Amino acid sequence: MSSIPKKGARRGGGRAGNTVNFGLLDELTGYAIKRAHERVFEAFMAATPDPHVTPPRYAALMIIASNGDLTQTDLAESLGIARSGAAAMVKALQDLGYVSQAAADGDRRAVSLALTPAGRIALDAVTTEIRKNDAALTASFAPDELKTFLALLERVGL
Amino acid sequence: MSSIPKKGARRGGGRAGNTVNFGLLDELTGYAIKRAHERVFEAFMAATPDPHVTPPRYAALMIIASNGDLTQTDLAESLGIARSGAAAMVKALQDLGYVSQAAADGDRRAVSLALTPAGRIALDAVTTEIRKNDAALTASFAPDELKTFLALLERVGL
Repeated sequence: MSSIPKKGARRGGGRAGNTVNFGLLDELTGYAIKRAHERVFEAFMAATPDPHVTPPRYAALMIIASNGDLTQTDLAESLGIARSGAAAMVKALQDLGYVSQAAADGDRRAVSLALTPAGRIALDAVTTEIRKNDAALTASFAPDELKTFLALLERVGL
Repeated sequence: MSSIPKKGARRGGGRAGNTVNFGLLDELTGYAIKRAHERVFEAFMAATPDPHVTPPRYAALMIIASNGDLTQTDLAESLGIARSGAAAMVKALQDLGYVSQAAADGDRRAVSLALTPAGRIALDAVTTEIRKNDAALTASFAPDELKTFLALLERVGL
């Protein structure tokens, strides 16, 4: 293998100066989106003041805070995850003391989700930092570039 | 809650015509990237002819195929995952009969990864469909829009 960096090659720390070739991956738009999402995830984890609040949990807290009478099924659909995944997420947020459940209006079999006061404080604290972090993600973008980028992102896969 | 769809609201199937409000999430570029990545993942899983080959496993197979003398540590770094995650991934790919391990050149303690003939067949079959799928993801983009989009994606988080 050549040790000369080339398109699609990145340095692998364990490879004594050799580079890793990503093959066709570097030609796939889907993989470019995946790598951008990895950087978003890493930046979130570096920015969150509450390490228990990962990106999926942050989305769950925000959605619970923004909707009355939300059930676990609603949450699963909103997050695009399985009901079992939503149940595990709610359990974790309850164990943290951030979310409570109560009988839902109009359906005594269903329970609706709500933030606890501690959950509200956690959500607000993370939101303050994540808004700054989110702006930093595209700090190099001109305003019209950001607008274009967001519009194109919306069109991916549609 | 209003049942009139508004910016940031999406229909929740379980909410009897009510919509789910995503709150601040819809103002975050990072969340827009996450949602685009979800659609990429879903499109991949719908397109792959081998359901065992998920997007992370596809990336692993491609990187193993594209580099001689690649160790598990190299693979972990390339994929941006922990060594334990790479070990589990390699175990799964070995169990599928797609990857084999052999002593690495120059270091008898390390093992290097290689595709088996079955792994090569699987990689090629998935690649054929994923190339089509990848083009479909941005089928609505003009060529210059795609070029702009890829350039902006590279700048996220840098």
